[in-house]
Amino acid sequence: MTEIRRRGLMLVLSSPSGAGKTTLSRRLLEADSGIVMSVSATTRPKRPTEVEGRDYFFVSSDAFGEMARAGELLEHATVFENQYGTPRQPVMDALAAGRDVLFDIDWQGTQQMKERVRDDLVSIFILPPTHAELERRLRTRAQDSDAVVAKRMAEAAAEISHWPEYDYVVVNDDVERAHARVLAILAAERCRRSRLAGVGDFVAQLTR
Amino acid sequence: MTEIRRRGLMLVLSSPSGAGKTTLSRRLLEADSGIVMSVSATTRPKRPTEVEGRDYFFVSSDAFGEMARAGELLEHATVFENQYGTPRQPVMDALAAGRDVLFDIDWQGTQQMKERVRDDLVSIFILPPTHAELERRLRTRAQDSDAVVAKRMAEAAAEISHWPEYDYVVVNDDVERAHARVLAILAAERCRRSRLAGVGDFVAQLTR
Repeated sequence: MTEIRRRGLMLVLSSPSGAGKTTLSRRLLEADSGIVMSVSATTRPKRPTEVEGRDYFFVSSDAFGEMARAGELLEHATVFENQYGTPRQPVMDALAAGRDVLFDIDWQGTQQMKERVRDDLVSIFILPPTHAELERRLRTRAQDSDAVVAKRMAEAAAEISHWPEYDYVVVNDDVERAHARVLAILAAERCRRSRLAGVGDFVAQLTR
Repeated sequence: MTEIRRRGLMLVLSSPSGAGKTTLSRRLLEADSGIVMSVSATTRPKRPTEVEGRDYFFVSSDAFGEMARAGELLEHATVFENQYGTPRQPVMDALAAGRDVLFDIDWQGTQQMKERVRDDLVSIFILPPTHAELERRLRTRAQDSDAVVAKRMAEAAAEISHWPEYDYVVVNDDVERAHARVLAILAAERCRRSRLAGVGDFVAQLTR
């Protein structure tokens, strides 16, 4: 017996659009088999390529409202008249099975989750390296008008303003380096004393 | 400008004898050029192979007492009538130069340092993997009597009892794995938001 039991942790990655969060999430899931992506529930219609329970849990508005009222959502929000939320039970099942769970949510979702699961939450804010690089990433198509890009920049600035609410800040100047930092944060948080269960038992057999 | 300034951090490694702390400290210093070892002051006589300022600062009992009274020691202790302590100024100079500083001190030194530098301290407790392995490591010579080993085990148990006072717990079941965990903790703590200075300025240029 050389492993100490620990509670699973919930790892939140937030960033403005264009900071590389989606790439970093995918890289993390590929690199570490101990962490799984949280699957959201949504009221928006399923697209042909999407798979129920993998991409989303597709539910009716009534069912979504009932989940929210019953406290079965860790966070939820409305985007363009569609509702999105994080069902609590699959997350709790994964944590109980010794898995960590990754969340790709914005500052509002993070605030809601913090209120519900404070101790088990580890939050990382990903920042783009420069103003010019952020603008370049937000100009996704050559024909984007300056007004469209300016609107996206304003939205990015609003999201970025919430960095002080996060445990860690990672600048994505180089995706390999940023990936290594996210991996290190996950590895370190797994060793955090407050998260380890059964150290007392472990120590008791050491010093019996 | 893609780096955010941060305060240096003080990384404490504590463990009982026989848990591999010395090896892990050496490996960390070799692997990461951004962290330097703290050099203690001591009243014990210099040995021929030792170098002033590298192995220790060798000082008289009077000078040591004066440093302690003046608050120039972050922690200090008496071992076999010799005094050992951590001079504050070289640590502060290293932190100001953007370096992190490593401390190989016991639970009592850690407690003293915590009182003086709470926010900048990151503490890791290294545990041996099993009772049998700890005993094997403490029986350093074949001719050690059972009584000598039992005394060392009791001392190890007393040190181990302080694990709850540390931020992280790492079981040294495999030195490569334990080394990777210590490195990850250092890398993660360097991204900790509360330790970063100038994120506000950085964000201001992003979202100007």
